[in-house]
Amino acid sequence: MSSPVSSLPRAVVLLSGGLDSATVLAMAQAQGFECFALSFDYGQRHKTELDAASRVAQALGAREHKIIRFDLTQWGGSALTDASIAVPTAPTTGIPITYVPARNTIFLSLALAWAETLGAPNIFAGMNAVDYSGYPDCRPEYVAAFQQMARLATRAGIEGEPVTIHTPIIHMSKADIVREGVRLGVDYAMTVSCYQADADGRACGRCDSCRLRREGFAAAGVADPTRYVS
Amino acid sequence: MSSPVSSLPRAVVLLSGGLDSATVLAMAQAQGFECFALSFDYGQRHKTELDAASRVAQALGAREHKIIRFDLTQWGGSALTDASIAVPTAPTTGIPITYVPARNTIFLSLALAWAETLGAPNIFAGMNAVDYSGYPDCRPEYVAAFQQMARLATRAGIEGEPVTIHTPIIHMSKADIVREGVRLGVDYAMTVSCYQADADGRACGRCDSCRLRREGFAAAGVADPTRYVS
Repeated sequence: MSSPVSSLPRAVVLLSGGLDSATVLAMAQAQGFECFALSFDYGQRHKTELDAASRVAQALGAREHKIIRFDLTQWGGSALTDASIAVPTAPTTGIPITYVPARNTIFLSLALAWAETLGAPNIFAGMNAVDYSGYPDCRPEYVAAFQQMARLATRAGIEGEPVTIHTPIIHMSKADIVREGVRLGVDYAMTVSCYQADADGRACGRCDSCRLRREGFAAAGVADPTRYVS
Repeated sequence: MSSPVSSLPRAVVLLSGGLDSATVLAMAQAQGFECFALSFDYGQRHKTELDAASRVAQALGAREHKIIRFDLTQWGGSALTDASIAVPTAPTTGIPITYVPARNTIFLSLALAWAETLGAPNIFAGMNAVDYSGYPDCRPEYVAAFQQMARLATRAGIEGEPVTIHTPIIHMSKADIVREGVRLGVDYAMTVSCYQADADGRACGRCDSCRLRREGFAAAGVADPTRYVS
């Protein structure tokens, strides 16, 4: 017999180890997808998020979890990939310096490669365009354009089932994301959102990502399980 | 004074070390761009092409040459990234097994990241849709969709000059590419196109890439400088 191990539809799920992507993984699992979680060691300042990603992938029952390494510090251009640029701890206007050029495009491209290899016509990603930092590659029109490109890029787009990019939290507030995760049993204590978390995964409590996360728990009426440095 | 070192327009140029991308680099230089060459060590069988890329970047006067490493053998799916799949030496129908899932999308995404960091609104790439192997991500409609997506993905697409993806040889025959490169002084003896070149860069003479290259030199009436294994 050469029947597949599982008859569930397959999905590659981008998993940073933060709150949003953990929720997305839980949603994809709840929707009945066999999930292949994908994380990136790209030279980010907050590399401890990768430990969180591994914990989350296991806890939520991903079929597999891969970490792909590449080094964006070779050109920097962001507070997250250039150690000489400080992470802002006060609100800024415009696109903040924590924006990493083309990061989501690189992430989705690698997800597309794995998805095509797996025969998985689904990619889940945790972009959010409500309580977010104004990054251009988190907007719905960007995701739609990526999907259109991806269908032209691949063998699957010609011969098989064209890929769908699922962004189930893109229009949700941070509070609604937290509520949905709690409903699905996500243990947010496992997750790390902070841009400058320490080696133990403790959050600074002051960066943009910490602020959005803390406000989300407060608005959801959920106790914040985040471990802060101070 | 904080004037830039150079006032030339900047471009990131994808450089594999093969015939096509060497020609594209020469064309971009001839068009007056300050060129930043980008190559990838992605686990390809023919890693010797990277030595060729370094030689070509230097010979043609690229301002900088970077090689980014990531490991596509983690999922394979192609004769170029899975050592257990042989490179075909006879013509096949459909998209061949040397197709690497989403490879050009990954390459262009990383080029986009460097381009945005440099403030370079131009990316040059050597896709060809005439004498090619039928890869979906070499078609003009794919390139147009990538450019559309890239403009939505980046800060530059919102605040600056939107990126242009230049594919100057996409509609050229291999013979015309060879003639253009010879006119511009490209030394094709430096380049490696073979999918299974040996460690010294000598070509097998039998794979699809060797066949297209050899036919190109013949049709152009240019002596083939390729070093073959036998």
